[in-house]
Amino acid sequence: MASRFNVASACGAAALVLALGATGCSHADTPERQSSEQLPTTASVLAAASEADWRGVDPGHTLYMDFADGARVVIELAPGFAPRHAANIQALVRAGWFDGALITRSQDNYVAQWGRPDDVEAGDRGEALDHVPAEFDRALDGLGWTSLEDGDVYAPQVGWVDGFPAARDPATGRAWLAHCYGMVGAGRGMAADSSDGSQLYAVTGHSPRHLDRNITVVGRVLSGIEHLSALPRGTGALGFYEEPGQRVPITRVVMAADLPASERLGLQVLRTDTETFEQLIRARRHRNEDWFIDPVGRVELCNVPLPVRTHGG
Amino acid sequence: MASRFNVASACGAAALVLALGATGCSHADTPERQSSEQLPTTASVLAAASEADWRGVDPGHTLYMDFADGARVVIELAPGFAPRHAANIQALVRAGWFDGALITRSQDNYVAQWGRPDDVEAGDRGEALDHVPAEFDRALDGLGWTSLEDGDVYAPQVGWVDGFPAARDPATGRAWLAHCYGMVGAGRGMAADSSDGSQLYAVTGHSPRHLDRNITVVGRVLSGIEHLSALPRGTGALGFYEEPGQRVPITRVVMAADLPASERLGLQVLRTDTETFEQLIRARRHRNEDWFIDPVGRVELCNVPLPVRTHGG
Repeated sequence: MASRFNVASACGAAALVLALGATGCSHADTPERQSSEQLPTTASVLAAASEADWRGVDPGHTLYMDFADGARVVIELAPGFAPRHAANIQALVRAGWFDGALITRSQDNYVAQWGRPDDVEAGDRGEALDHVPAEFDRALDGLGWTSLEDGDVYAPQVGWVDGFPAARDPATGRAWLAHCYGMVGAGRGMAADSSDGSQLYAVTGHSPRHLDRNITVVGRVLSGIEHLSALPRGTGALGFYEEPGQRVPITRVVMAADLPASERLGLQVLRTDTETFEQLIRARRHRNEDWFIDPVGRVELCNVPLPVRTHGG
Repeated sequence: MASRFNVASACGAAALVLALGATGCSHADTPERQSSEQLPTTASVLAAASEADWRGVDPGHTLYMDFADGARVVIELAPGFAPRHAANIQALVRAGWFDGALITRSQDNYVAQWGRPDDVEAGDRGEALDHVPAEFDRALDGLGWTSLEDGDVYAPQVGWVDGFPAARDPATGRAWLAHCYGMVGAGRGMAADSSDGSQLYAVTGHSPRHLDRNITVVGRVLSGIEHLSALPRGTGALGFYEEPGQRVPITRVVMAADLPASERLGLQVLRTDTETFEQLIRARRHRNEDWFIDPVGRVELCNVPLPVRTHGG
């Protein structure tokens, strides 16, 4: 008997509803449904967003990490949380530290990590400092905040700050970035202040929130995370590649600001301090897409998508 | 200046502490530390586990999914939660339905999915039924339960049943399997009862717990998840591969019980109804490994590892 499932169309009957926008696959825009249902979905909220709901990404805080096969990973730094690390990473990028650096580690359900291991040629550090303080958290005073009221296992309060998932504790007056999928941090040794931004990692598995406040989070991947998450896993302890030849060379890392405007990608992120984003949270909480039978009515911090688009897209 | 990080050893200073057992990298087994610290870590709890803390995996409920390059994914079915789907999957496996089936979809931070799309030769369904009921949840009566007391965003109560992560609601008297990383479910269309086990998916990203009670979970990957999670992402909507040639052929799927005993892997899973597992939960909650500076003191359901070993290993 033939399969009753049709996957020739990605929107066919067998298609599991996806994590981010079910763009093009939502049934909410079918005319006969529109007349009877107006419950927002991720796709309908994004379709209705205005230009003002998006913000440009500061090219001075954005780096492009390129690979020989043309793959590009774009990372937005978070100087609001890790100003010293962000500045050091910028200095390292501008000195060429990451040009010819290597992805040294891919641990399943955890992180991919890159830098310059001791057994390769030392890179130029330029104006980068040899030591920067740990930036595990910051004062919550003065921080814009969009709250998620659905609770959290790891922190008293969670929400978003300018497009980044974050947590805070009013009792201590501190806030910190949350280790959601795609977040980028600065590898460190045993000492709290042993990271300097010369070695970075990105989260590629279930969000390891136990790392929060134990390591400096420096930003997040805006696009191209699949070039890190789909890497072959290292077979050494902690997912390190055991053979030098398994490491993946990084061709070049540049700050977007150092490229001519014509070579910048013009990415925008959905602002998280808007009514549109509140609608997106609700759409993710209630999952009004037709496919869902028993929408749970709650959503976890790391399951709310943070949409990115090309300017004007 | 040379990097100060040493990644020649995976246990070196720059190694981020890992998700599962920091086996071989934990400092807890260093003699001088043992005398001063006895706080349990994941590694020390596992090292102290007895033979009785492990249970064998029933070969009648275990399937081996093999690929041409020698990769193998091992899945343990959960007939305690999805008996009708488990039986249908067993029938499909024995009819050869999955021999020559294809991985059709790899969506970043979500799922990999496999089956027989309409545009390939129909497989033999053997004794498999054309229709099985949805098995989204079950009565919690009679279910062994190990509770996690750290809370959960999605469910009133969470914990483990015989090695599977689960949730329950005393108010409704129902329990269900939780969509943690590596869990396996049965793809369905729009109708609740449109899954029959002939198309399966595995979770390869941040746990999509909003799928709980919306689709039938049939088991979990015991080993080889990296062969699914590291697949190139499909570029079509929902991560479907756009070109037939991008799909990954599955050479053969067999029930372990149908192999001679000498060809079975003899896997064991750590029992979740033991004091050892309670210690593991505590070790994950408090993260006593030296690397951690600010252990959070709480842990989320999907961040507690469910260790698997080869018998006697």
